[in-house]
Amino acid sequence: MENFEFCNPTKIIFGKGILDRLGDEVRALGEKCILVTGKKSARETGVYNQVKSKLKEAGIEVLDLSGVQSNPVLSKVHEGIGMARKEGVSFLVALGGGSVMDTAKAVAAGALYDGDIWEVFEGKGEITGALPVVCIPTLAASGSEMNGFMVITNEESGYKLAAGSPHTYPRISFLAPELTFTVPRDYTAYGGVDAICHVLEPYFNGPDPFTPVQDEIAEGLIRTLMPATKRCMEEPENYQQRAALMWAATLALNGLTRAGVGDHPFPVHLIEHSLSAIYGIPHGAGLAALLPGWMKWKATLKGAKKVAWFGIRCLGCTDKGNEKDTALEAADAFGRWLSKVECPRSLSELDIPEKDHEKIAQNALFQSRIWGIENDYNENVIKEILSFCQ
Amino acid sequence: MENFEFCNPTKIIFGKGILDRLGDEVRALGEKCILVTGKKSARETGVYNQVKSKLKEAGIEVLDLSGVQSNPVLSKVHEGIGMARKEGVSFLVALGGGSVMDTAKAVAAGALYDGDIWEVFEGKGEITGALPVVCIPTLAASGSEMNGFMVITNEESGYKLAAGSPHTYPRISFLAPELTFTVPRDYTAYGGVDAICHVLEPYFNGPDPFTPVQDEIAEGLIRTLMPATKRCMEEPENYQQRAALMWAATLALNGLTRAGVGDHPFPVHLIEHSLSAIYGIPHGAGLAALLPGWMKWKATLKGAKKVAWFGIRCLGCTDKGNEKDTALEAADAFGRWLSKVECPRSLSELDIPEKDHEKIAQNALFQSRIWGIENDYNENVIKEILSFCQ
Repeated sequence: MENFEFCNPTKIIFGKGILDRLGDEVRALGEKCILVTGKKSARETGVYNQVKSKLKEAGIEVLDLSGVQSNPVLSKVHEGIGMARKEGVSFLVALGGGSVMDTAKAVAAGALYDGDIWEVFEGKGEITGALPVVCIPTLAASGSEMNGFMVITNEESGYKLAAGSPHTYPRISFLAPELTFTVPRDYTAYGGVDAICHVLEPYFNGPDPFTPVQDEIAEGLIRTLMPATKRCMEEPENYQQRAALMWAATLALNGLTRAGVGDHPFPVHLIEHSLSAIYGIPHGAGLAALLPGWMKWKATLKGAKKVAWFGIRCLGCTDKGNEKDTALEAADAFGRWLSKVECPRSLSELDIPEKDHEKIAQNALFQSRIWGIENDYNENVIKEILSFCQ
Repeated sequence: MENFEFCNPTKIIFGKGILDRLGDEVRALGEKCILVTGKKSARETGVYNQVKSKLKEAGIEVLDLSGVQSNPVLSKVHEGIGMARKEGVSFLVALGGGSVMDTAKAVAAGALYDGDIWEVFEGKGEITGALPVVCIPTLAASGSEMNGFMVITNEESGYKLAAGSPHTYPRISFLAPELTFTVPRDYTAYGGVDAICHVLEPYFNGPDPFTPVQDEIAEGLIRTLMPATKRCMEEPENYQQRAALMWAATLALNGLTRAGVGDHPFPVHLIEHSLSAIYGIPHGAGLAALLPGWMKWKATLKGAKKVAWFGIRCLGCTDKGNEKDTALEAADAFGRWLSKVECPRSLSELDIPEKDHEKIAQNALFQSRIWGIENDYNENVIKEILSFCQ
């Protein structure tokens, strides 16, 4: 195990009927908030009105920042920052998926940042404070409800970049599995794939220290996420399956599985951010298209041990006597599972042609530099990975 | 999954060389602290001097509260409270095992409590604030370094009682596996058993909701704790094994495995507190003597499913076709493991005779009432469990 720090102060309130506690829990945060929402689903399901009423009943003035899109954009963040500053709001409530939560965090940090918050995403500035954020996720996927990360797309430059800070952990997150009953089949699957990828990247990409605690937790989360994703597609109103998917997705990126595994890049997320920035595809679909190829690239060129373990411990693969063959079988088995949950398992399935690899690699390289991993993930390596994913 | 709240704000700093950061990390907590220690081991190993120097170098005045014993006593807590009030200390540093950390927490809460802090243990008062506590555990066992619980023995009344509060989570815990290299064989084993019991009680005792996430984490922790305990006894200076044992023991009682499994009593801890209060035996030894019998009692009278799962998933037991037989085999297999790590597996092995069951049950019943579980764990039930443990 490598040295680590772990501190996750987010308060989780999980279960049925929990929104009744919203007013009591957030009253101490101030008298004026911004309610951040997406395009329409929270309004259609009625939860938008429910949340707004609870806040107003608690004596809180509510301003709206609505219309946040998938792959959320910087202009919306700027709009929110302007509103927060002009109106002197005390906190934000994010009601939606990862895009909404990430937008709220970026507004919360940006409102107190001296300059354009995009500087932070480009690695040219640091978050030194943020307004409190309360999350009410309506999708099990990003884990944003219990971490300090946010991912924003600058629609002018065409880059989708991540930032994070101890200041942008949500103060409280209300995890109500019933709010995810209306998530459609495809986004249920994309969410499950996103959470699985959050677990797999540190699991596969660390420096191979001895980390039995972290490996057990990672494998346990994946063994939960895979069947729960499928069951939630088949039975969208199965509370227990939605609850398992939601809590596992939250724990998948709350720092627990990463603590002690050493430095690890997130190359699949790195490359996927380029895919969704360029093609506007859902994040989970992009990850699905990359994961089997990335596992094959790992197995072939970078050490197959953990991919083989993943196959044996999570997918029921048999040990083929050598790590590489077992790992390649794991990549195939995971690809077959992706097909079962109706996700793409290659770039071809997303109609992304081989000739685009250059463009994708250039975009990804920009992030690679910001993340400081351009030595390991340079243009050639990214193209090499893409060739396995084609 | 049942409704739950989860919030664990303790900052963990884990690894090698971390005590170099002590001064920088705690300076903001104030200028005067009490350093709480045990009888002698921290002085013998040199870590006492190391910690004291780091604190002084950071400009912090250090008062000593030393001589905390196993099964820590109320009189020492009162001594610390008097010192904290008289000297106006700002925070406490606990350097030692669970007894030292629990004493520090009780002093931290007691210093701000209007009345005798023992009222809180008896369920007659509530903690409404506490001085910050910094933990430096020298033993992997209690998990006290990442939870709000404390267990104190009132040596006048002969009761060992637990209390807990959101205010008594340590502010920061420095987890340095190297500090546990000198823990002797027996206490290494007792610590492992304590941590395993912390995982098993909620795993076995919940109302059987569907909790795949929690079950996977619980089973993963046990699969880590069992071999790591044995390896640490054989190779006391094996850093990676000590690290695995320490981190798993911390996660065993940080709220994670309990969140969502519903209300669950801790009957093994309940009865063991009576054993250590009456006979002065180490907590882990008492737990070991009770665990196989308690599993047999569960398997025979209370539902064998989870005990059977434990056997199959953690002990390599084969499914005997019915839950009860599989569970009884699990209890035996766990007993065999206890013998391998040189722990008692029955009351007889601790020389506690059957005629004492009455006395133990009476003591345990007092706690059972405070915990509000006297309907399920009344005198007859406690005696019934003890008969399986004899």
